[in-house]
Amino acid sequence: MKSFSPPNRLLMGPGPSDVHPRILSAMARQTIGHLDPAFIEMMDETKQMLQYAFMTENELTMPISAPGSAGMEACFVNLVEPGDKVIVCINGVFGSRMKENVTRIGGHAIIVNDEWGKPVDPQKVEQSLIDNPDAKIVAFVHAETSTGALSDAKLICELANNHGCITIVDAVTSLVGSELRVDDWGIDAIYSGSQKCLSAMPGLSPVSFSEKAIHKITHRSTPVTSWFLDLNLVMGYWGKGAKRAYHHTAPVNTLYGLHESLVMLTEEGLENSWARHQSNHLLLREGLSKLGIHYLVDEPSRLPQLNSVFIPEGTNEAEVRSTLLNDYNIEIGAGLGDLAGKIWRIGLMGHTSRKENIDLCLSALQKTL
Amino acid sequence: MKSFSPPNRLLMGPGPSDVHPRILSAMARQTIGHLDPAFIEMMDETKQMLQYAFMTENELTMPISAPGSAGMEACFVNLVEPGDKVIVCINGVFGSRMKENVTRIGGHAIIVNDEWGKPVDPQKVEQSLIDNPDAKIVAFVHAETSTGALSDAKLICELANNHGCITIVDAVTSLVGSELRVDDWGIDAIYSGSQKCLSAMPGLSPVSFSEKAIHKITHRSTPVTSWFLDLNLVMGYWGKGAKRAYHHTAPVNTLYGLHESLVMLTEEGLENSWARHQSNHLLLREGLSKLGIHYLVDEPSRLPQLNSVFIPEGTNEAEVRSTLLNDYNIEIGAGLGDLAGKIWRIGLMGHTSRKENIDLCLSALQKTL
Repeated sequence: MKSFSPPNRLLMGPGPSDVHPRILSAMARQTIGHLDPAFIEMMDETKQMLQYAFMTENELTMPISAPGSAGMEACFVNLVEPGDKVIVCINGVFGSRMKENVTRIGGHAIIVNDEWGKPVDPQKVEQSLIDNPDAKIVAFVHAETSTGALSDAKLICELANNHGCITIVDAVTSLVGSELRVDDWGIDAIYSGSQKCLSAMPGLSPVSFSEKAIHKITHRSTPVTSWFLDLNLVMGYWGKGAKRAYHHTAPVNTLYGLHESLVMLTEEGLENSWARHQSNHLLLREGLSKLGIHYLVDEPSRLPQLNSVFIPEGTNEAEVRSTLLNDYNIEIGAGLGDLAGKIWRIGLMGHTSRKENIDLCLSALQKTL
Repeated sequence: MKSFSPPNRLLMGPGPSDVHPRILSAMARQTIGHLDPAFIEMMDETKQMLQYAFMTENELTMPISAPGSAGMEACFVNLVEPGDKVIVCINGVFGSRMKENVTRIGGHAIIVNDEWGKPVDPQKVEQSLIDNPDAKIVAFVHAETSTGALSDAKLICELANNHGCITIVDAVTSLVGSELRVDDWGIDAIYSGSQKCLSAMPGLSPVSFSEKAIHKITHRSTPVTSWFLDLNLVMGYWGKGAKRAYHHTAPVNTLYGLHESLVMLTEEGLENSWARHQSNHLLLREGLSKLGIHYLVDEPSRLPQLNSVFIPEGTNEAEVRSTLLNDYNIEIGAGLGDLAGKIWRIGLMGHTSRKENIDLCLSALQKTL
């Protein structure tokens, strides 16, 4: 058996995005103990920078030691108790996954459906809140990675709060790429992924919980079914002060990488990052339009960091992706679920979101089509 | 905010162990997509080498994308259904954690207790099997990381199999450091960690499941409460063939590291690795004995890779550990749970298990005490 040498790809799919050399090199720093005082300091800095990225003062802001799917599960398994009514908005794959999470732990999911490619319709959410006065939670995806649609998180949270519901928000693809204000918008529980617009390597899920959410978690009448994700325990490790209780062994080196990506974010500035994602999206859109390629999502809810476009008629879509990968070393994403075979997903996330990559991708697409 | 520079520690605690430079440098290789054909090939090689490490031909042998605690949870949440009777052997912290896993998902845990520092008593296990003919599973820890005791996994599995039970075995600390033969010993479900004797960075949990275990998982009458750990879904991603179904985004770079550590294992040879852990243990034991330091665990069940020793009387144990860390850059482990303040845990795992480290540790201990 030989060491593995990965090919030199340009990652323009729905994530992971290209990882900056600074972050890769941070990953290779010497592993230290997960209870080492030096490590605890790094954890504190990571929490602080994640608060900046989420625009929140929530004390419980930290990365879950597993991918975004586990971050999603951490939110649901801690906040939903058996029998709880949860309004789940579905406009793509990840809304459906939220529903799966609710029902597996015995919650009662009330579904608000929207067409894939459309944003969540706030009017339907309001109607569902009126129809279900006993609902306790509203859950929705801010940026649907399967469709490239951005929903109005601010408005949906306002509606939920007005009806006494707490909110669970999927920000896997939006964090750092699109405007997102956890405190201003009244988001109670939110999860993201390290491998999208943060451009760190996959494997961590930044989360944040409001005081209201923590109150629900610490006053449950049933234990959390997951020991690994029970925030009552995880808080002891990621909590305040120098004394941390051992819970699990943190993924030390992956956390080095996340820390470095957050340092780079503070250097660039959050608003600048949002603006960069937007301006590069406009460049790509211009080029795609010249190739006669059209977007799935209407302009007002189009995600800049994830460009879902219809596959031109008569194109063998798998062959195109394969040519891009093998001849140009460019990865773009296929459609998921109902949109498989119908769309491509071109990511411009984090370190991938650079002008030179847009040129490379457009030129390769033009030659391939 | 500045980039993080970890201090240059020697990791002689209960894990993580020192990571070899080859593995660190593998982690820094360029991130590629988790569905890239090159990555799928690397996954296949990883599975194959994990089969070698576990001494099994189990097709379902792979790393869970999260730390050992999640590997434990993957075993219990998939194999235990509400109401199932599970015999859980407790002789340390991790046995207690197994019990937590069983009860949180509605299983009925029958406890076989042994003193901390002693191995699991097979006679008690047999008695419990006789007393509970409706028990479905026997769960125990092969190498108790909290005490340094090794239990007779072969014999306990034989007893369980004779009574028609399947077995769940914690091999977090034993894998690659102590003799372990999954197929020969009839182990049905087993989990380990990447950061112990494999000396990869923390964050992955290698697991393996027998056909009998898979049959139970695929014939459950209730859904697995965890979506993230549901092996019915995970198998679609880590399963056979080139066509993999997206489940979650694999921690790409951490898997590079695990792959490299397994390549190094195949170079050294599994039996040679067991022997190295044993001979270095004997060296450390000799030195500790000269310092008048005694072991918690009786010789026949003493783990070579985790040396649990009584703190000499009149010693300020926290001060000693702190001096070792700050003046010598050596990390050793404190006691956990009931053994906090009573023992130290000196790890000789994986890349840490080298003669020069034993000299460094003994000399630093001598000067400090």
